[in-house]
Amino acid sequence: MRTGTFQRVSVREPSGVVQNSAMNPDLLSERQGASFDIEKLTVFIDGGEERTTKRRQMEGLAVNDPEMRHDDLNFLSRSERYDVAVRKSALMVRRMQQNGITDPEEIYWYKRACHRNRAEPLDLHLGMFLPTLLHQATPEQQEQFFMPAWQLKIIGTYAQTEIGHGTFIRGLETTATFDAATQEFVLHSPTVTSIKWWPGGLGKTSNHAVVLAQLYTRGKCHGLHAFIVQLRDMETHQPLPGIVVGDIGPKFGYDEVDNGFLKFEHVRVPRKNMLMKYAKVEEDGTYVKPPSDKLTYGTMVFVRSMIVSDAARALSQACTVAIRYSAVRRQSEMTPGAPEPQILDYQTQQYKLFPLLATAYAFQFVGAYMRATYMRISGDINQGDFREMPELHATSAGLKAFTSWAASSGIEVCRMACGGHGYSCSSGLPDLYVTFTSACTYEGENTVMMLQTARYLMKSYSQVRAGKPLSGLVSYLNELSHGGRVRPRAVGGGGGGGGDIADLAGLVLLYGQRAAVLVESAARNMQAELSAGRSPEEAWNGASVDLVRASEGHCYYVVVKTFVEKLAEVSDHAVLAVLTALCQLYALYGVTQHGRDFLEAGLLTPQQMEGASRAVKALLSRLRPDAVALVDAFDFHDDILGSVLGRYDGNVYEHLFEWAKRSPLNKTQVHESFYKYIKPMASSKL
Amino acid sequence: MRTGTFQRVSVREPSGVVQNSAMNPDLLSERQGASFDIEKLTVFIDGGEERTTKRRQMEGLAVNDPEMRHDDLNFLSRSERYDVAVRKSALMVRRMQQNGITDPEEIYWYKRACHRNRAEPLDLHLGMFLPTLLHQATPEQQEQFFMPAWQLKIIGTYAQTEIGHGTFIRGLETTATFDAATQEFVLHSPTVTSIKWWPGGLGKTSNHAVVLAQLYTRGKCHGLHAFIVQLRDMETHQPLPGIVVGDIGPKFGYDEVDNGFLKFEHVRVPRKNMLMKYAKVEEDGTYVKPPSDKLTYGTMVFVRSMIVSDAARALSQACTVAIRYSAVRRQSEMTPGAPEPQILDYQTQQYKLFPLLATAYAFQFVGAYMRATYMRISGDINQGDFREMPELHATSAGLKAFTSWAASSGIEVCRMACGGHGYSCSSGLPDLYVTFTSACTYEGENTVMMLQTARYLMKSYSQVRAGKPLSGLVSYLNELSHGGRVRPRAVGGGGGGGGDIADLAGLVLLYGQRAAVLVESAARNMQAELSAGRSPEEAWNGASVDLVRASEGHCYYVVVKTFVEKLAEVSDHAVLAVLTALCQLYALYGVTQHGRDFLEAGLLTPQQMEGASRAVKALLSRLRPDAVALVDAFDFHDDILGSVLGRYDGNVYEHLFEWAKRSPLNKTQVHESFYKYIKPMASSKL
Repeated sequence: MRTGTFQRVSVREPSGVVQNSAMNPDLLSERQGASFDIEKLTVFIDGGEERTTKRRQMEGLAVNDPEMRHDDLNFLSRSERYDVAVRKSALMVRRMQQNGITDPEEIYWYKRACHRNRAEPLDLHLGMFLPTLLHQATPEQQEQFFMPAWQLKIIGTYAQTEIGHGTFIRGLETTATFDAATQEFVLHSPTVTSIKWWPGGLGKTSNHAVVLAQLYTRGKCHGLHAFIVQLRDMETHQPLPGIVVGDIGPKFGYDEVDNGFLKFEHVRVPRKNMLMKYAKVEEDGTYVKPPSDKLTYGTMVFVRSMIVSDAARALSQACTVAIRYSAVRRQSEMTPGAPEPQILDYQTQQYKLFPLLATAYAFQFVGAYMRATYMRISGDINQGDFREMPELHATSAGLKAFTSWAASSGIEVCRMACGGHGYSCSSGLPDLYVTFTSACTYEGENTVMMLQTARYLMKSYSQVRAGKPLSGLVSYLNELSHGGRVRPRAVGGGGGGGGDIADLAGLVLLYGQRAAVLVESAARNMQAELSAGRSPEEAWNGASVDLVRASEGHCYYVVVKTFVEKLAEVSDHAVLAVLTALCQLYALYGVTQHGRDFLEAGLLTPQQMEGASRAVKALLSRLRPDAVALVDAFDFHDDILGSVLGRYDGNVYEHLFEWAKRSPLNKTQVHESFYKYIKPMASSKL
Repeated sequence: MRTGTFQRVSVREPSGVVQNSAMNPDLLSERQGASFDIEKLTVFIDGGEERTTKRRQMEGLAVNDPEMRHDDLNFLSRSERYDVAVRKSALMVRRMQQNGITDPEEIYWYKRACHRNRAEPLDLHLGMFLPTLLHQATPEQQEQFFMPAWQLKIIGTYAQTEIGHGTFIRGLETTATFDAATQEFVLHSPTVTSIKWWPGGLGKTSNHAVVLAQLYTRGKCHGLHAFIVQLRDMETHQPLPGIVVGDIGPKFGYDEVDNGFLKFEHVRVPRKNMLMKYAKVEEDGTYVKPPSDKLTYGTMVFVRSMIVSDAARALSQACTVAIRYSAVRRQSEMTPGAPEPQILDYQTQQYKLFPLLATAYAFQFVGAYMRATYMRISGDINQGDFREMPELHATSAGLKAFTSWAASSGIEVCRMACGGHGYSCSSGLPDLYVTFTSACTYEGENTVMMLQTARYLMKSYSQVRAGKPLSGLVSYLNELSHGGRVRPRAVGGGGGGGGDIADLAGLVLLYGQRAAVLVESAARNMQAELSAGRSPEEAWNGASVDLVRASEGHCYYVVVKTFVEKLAEVSDHAVLAVLTALCQLYALYGVTQHGRDFLEAGLLTPQQMEGASRAVKALLSRLRPDAVALVDAFDFHDDILGSVLGRYDGNVYEHLFEWAKRSPLNKTQVHESFYKYIKPMASSKL
C-alpha cells in the first residue's frame, strides 16, 4: 500500500484545508487490493526512474513554493485570474533563472506545475516568440532582441491569425509594404477581417510581436513574411501610435490568457525588423527568396505531437477524478437492504470510465511514440534526410485531431459520470474541459487536420495501386496491390469464428484491414465523383466525409499498434497483465463502437461481434479491482489535479463543504441584491 | 425575402451596438434562395398562428422592456450576474402582475425571454415551491403561505438532494423527528453527507424551503415527507438559529443561480408545517399514511417532458448560430484562384451540422408530442384512469436522457464547427452549453433514466413472451410473441436490396425492428446471467450496458415515428418537402451511425448500408440551399440568441470587434499587473 503519491519526495507538503485526515476507507481498500505495484507503472509511463524523479522534483519546486500559492482560481474574476497568472509567470521565469533550470523537459515540467496545467500569458513569448527569434532571426537581430526577451524586458507574441482568417494562412490580409525612401516597412490592416485576433499574451502583456504579413515590395506581393513590431512603449506600456491593441474578451476557458486583437494603422518599422535569416528585402527593395520551404515544417509537427501528450494528460486527469470519486461515492441499492454500493460497481459506470482509462493509457504511449519519432526524424532532417517527414507530418496531423477529439469528449463523460458534483467547479472538471477542448481548434482545426492525413493516405493508395510497395505505418495498404482486396483472416484464423477475439496481434491486423478498407472506399468514392464529371477539387469535397473516416481508421490503427508494441517493453509480470487488459479493452471497445465498419467489410461475423461485446464486459470486471491503482499511477499531485472530488485521500464531502464556504457569494450572509430588489418588492403592495 | 424575424411584431427594436447596418450579402442570398416560406414553417413549429403571435408578444414584452436591459453577462462577475438575475426576476414577477399574465404558456414564454433562456434564482420558487403548496398543502397551509409567496414576501425553494445523496432519494438522511411535548418537528442533519445541497435559490435568495426529510414519530421512521421550514428572518434576511445556509460555490454554468447548501442543527418547526394534504402526523404522534403513491408521479413526468423541449430549443439555438455563421464565414480554397468559399459548402461542415439540424427538428416535434400526451393522460388520470401512465413514465424518462445527451453533445459540435470564434463567449455557445448540459444530470441522472425505461421494456418483453399482445409504443415487440424472431423485411421488401432506403414507412419499421432486437438481446443476456446463478439484482447489473442500449433503441424509434407522423399534419407542399428531407436525414444518419445494430441483426445488408451512406450525402446537398431558412424558422430574436456569430443580419466581424472592445480587461490600456509584476521584473538585473 502506498500512503501518498508524493511522500517519497522530500519536498512534498499536504495540500487542502483539512489537514492530517485519514484516508477514506473505500480508497484504502481499493489500493490494498490492486494486483500490481503502482510505482512500477508510474515509472513505466514516465519512461524510466530518472525521469520520474526529475519530474517530481520539478513539480515539488512549484507546488511547495509559498510564493506560488493563491486563492482557488474558480473564486476569482477573470481580471484577478489574469493578475495571478502574470504574477506566477514572472516568478516562474525568475525561479528558472535562479535555479538554473535550462533542460527543455525540466522547463516543461516546471512550467506545467507552476500553472497547474493551465495556459498562461507568457506561453507564446516562451513557446513561439523566443523560438522564432532563434530560428528565423539573423545574428544581428538575435543580438538586439534575444537577451532582452529572455529577461522579460521585451515580451513578445506571435501574431498570425486574423479575425476573418484562421487555418488557411494564405488568406491573411495584413500588409507590410516596403518604403525604400525611408527604409521602412509599413504595416497595415486594410479591412475589419484583417485585424489580428487570438494571439495569447497580445491583449495586455506583450510589448512586441512577431507579425505575419503579406510582403509588398516594388509593387509586388511576395506572400507571408514575419516582422518584429514593437506594440507598446517600453516605459509606460501604452500602445504606440497607429497600434490598436486589446483583449478579445471572455472565452470558454483560458481566463488566464489575454488573447488579443491588433489593428495596424500604417505603422512603420525599420527594414531590419523583417526576420531575414532566410528571405530578405534589400535596401533597394529587391526581394530575395528563402532557400527552402521545409524549414518551418518541423515546429508544426512538434507542436502537434505535443498535443497528443496533452490529450493523454488531460484525459488521465479526468479519469483520475472520476474513478477515485466513483470509489468513494455510494448510491442506490443493488441488493434490497444491503448498503449502497460504490458507484464504481455499476456496470454502466465501468462502461463509461474504463474504456476512457484505456484510451488515456493508449494516448500516453502514442504521445511518447510521437515525441521519440520526432526526435529521431529531426536528427535525420538535420542531416538532410527528409524521407520520413511526410509520414510523420501526416500522422501528427491526424493524431492531433484524433486524440484531442477523444480526450475532449471523454473529459465530459468523466464529468457527467460524477453526477451533480461533476458540474461543480470543485470537481476541477469544468475547468479542465474548457482549457483542453480548445486543442480541437488551435494549431490546425481538427477536420482540416484529418483531411491532411487523408491526402497522404490517398497518395499512398495510388502508389500501392501502381504496384509500388509501401513501408512504414501505411504498409497495411500493401494487401491492395495488384488489384487485391482485403481478405478477412485476422481473427480466429479465417473469419469464421473460433480463435480468440482478444488476441492482440490479431487485433492489430484487424485494425489495419479496416483502415485499408476505409482508404479504398474513400478512393473509390472520389473516383466515382471524378467519373461523374466533377473537378478534382469538387471530387475531393464530395468524398471528404469518407476521407475523414479513412483518416480515423488510420489513426485508430496507429494507436492500437503502438499500444501493443509498447507492451513488449514491460518487464514486470503484474504490470504487463493489467496493461494487456487495458490494451484489449481499448481495441475491443473500439471494435464494438465501430462495428459497422468491421461487419460491412466482412472482417468480422455477427457472432464475432457479439463475442467482442462479451469480451468487453469481461474486461470491465477484470479491471474493476485495479481501477483506482491505474489512475494513481498517473501520479497527479493533488494541487495539480485541483479537484475536491479527485483528492488522493478521498475525503470528498468534508472538503466540498469547506470549499463551498469559501465561495465569494458567502462573504456576507445577505447579498446586496436583497436590499436592492427583494426587500422593496416584498414590502410593496402589489 | 424576410427582412427581419420580428418586423411583423410592432414591439420589435433592433439590438446590438451598430445600428441600421445592411444584411450580409451571403445571408441575403441564402434567404432569397430558400425553397419554402419561412413564416409558414415557424407557425407549424409553434403549433398554429395564434401561438406564434402570442409567443412573439411575450418575447417582445421582455426584449423591449428598457428596465430588462443590462451589460452582456459574459462581462460580469458571478456576483454581478446573480445581482442582475435577482433584479430581473423581481421585475418579471411585478410585470406579470401588472400585465395580468396568468396563462401558463404565456408565463413560460415571458419568463424564458426575460432571462434569455437562462436559469434564474426564482426558478424553484415558481416551479417547485408554489406548485408543491398547491398540490400538497392543506387549505389552512395554503391560506398561510400561498399569497405571501406569490407576492415574494415568502420566497421558497425545494430542498431534496443532499451532498451524499442524489437520484436515489430513499437514501436521504435528514431527519424530522416529532416532539409531541411541544407539538414540533425537529429537523436535523446528522452527518456531513446529509447536508442539503444543490437546491436553486437556496443559497442567498430564499427565506423558506420545502424540505424533504425522513419522518420519525413514536420512535419509528415513516420515510420521506415534506416540511415547510423558515430559513431566514423576514426582516433582516439573516439565517435563523440552527440554520447553516449558503451558496455551494461556482459551477460550470448557472452563474445566475444561488444553488445552496443547508445544514440543520436541531431546528424546530410547528407540527402544522408538515405538508399534510395526504400523509399526516396527529397531535399524539400517530402517523396517517397517504392514500396513494401515484399522486406525485405526474409532476416528475411533466418536468421530464419539458426537458425534451428544452433540448430541442437549446440544439435549435446552437444550429442557428453555427449555420448562419457558416454561411458568412469564408475560408480556404476549394478551387485554386477562386474566392474562398462559404464554409457551409464543405461537405464535412454539412455532415456536422445538418444531422444536428434534423435532430433539432425531430426533438421539437417529439417535445410537442410529449406535452400533448401528458395533457391527454393527465385528463385520464384525473378521472382515475392510470392505464397509460406507465408507458408515459417510461417514455418521458428515456426521452429526457436521449434528447438531453444528444443536444448537449450537439451544441459542442456546433461550437467547434465555428472554429476559434466558437470558443469566444461572443458566440453565445459556451454559455448555452454550460447552461443546458446540466439537464443530463438534474431531474434524474440520464443513465438511471435509461434504466427506468429499460425496466418497462423488460416487463413488456415478458408480457409478449407470455403471449399477451402489446399496444402503444412498444407494439413493435409483438413480432416476438410465440417465440417469434425479428424477420428482416423493412427495406426494399425483403432485406435483399432494391427498394428505396429512404422510404419513411420502411424506416419506422426498421427502427422498430432494431428496438425489438436490442430488447430481446438485453433480455437474453440477463437470462444468461440468471442461468449462471446470479441474483436478479446482479443479473440486472450484469446486463445493464445492454439494457441502456435497448432503451436507446426504443427512444430512437419513438423519435423517428413521431417525426414521420408529424409530416402528415403539414399542408404546405414546400414545407412538407423540406421537412421530409430532414426526417429522412435524421433516420438515415442514425442508421449509418448505428450500423452495427442493423448489420449484426441482418436487418440491412452491407449494400443497403452503403446505400444509406450515399443517401445521407445526397440529403446534405438537398438541404444545403435551405439550411439558413431552416434555422431562421426557429425564430430566435437576436437578444435571446445572444450570439455575435449568429446575428440575423450576419454582420459578424464588425460586431465581434465592437464586443471585444467592451471587454472588462479593456477598461484600461495598461492592466495593473504590469506595474505590479512585469515592470519590476523588467527593470531588475537578473
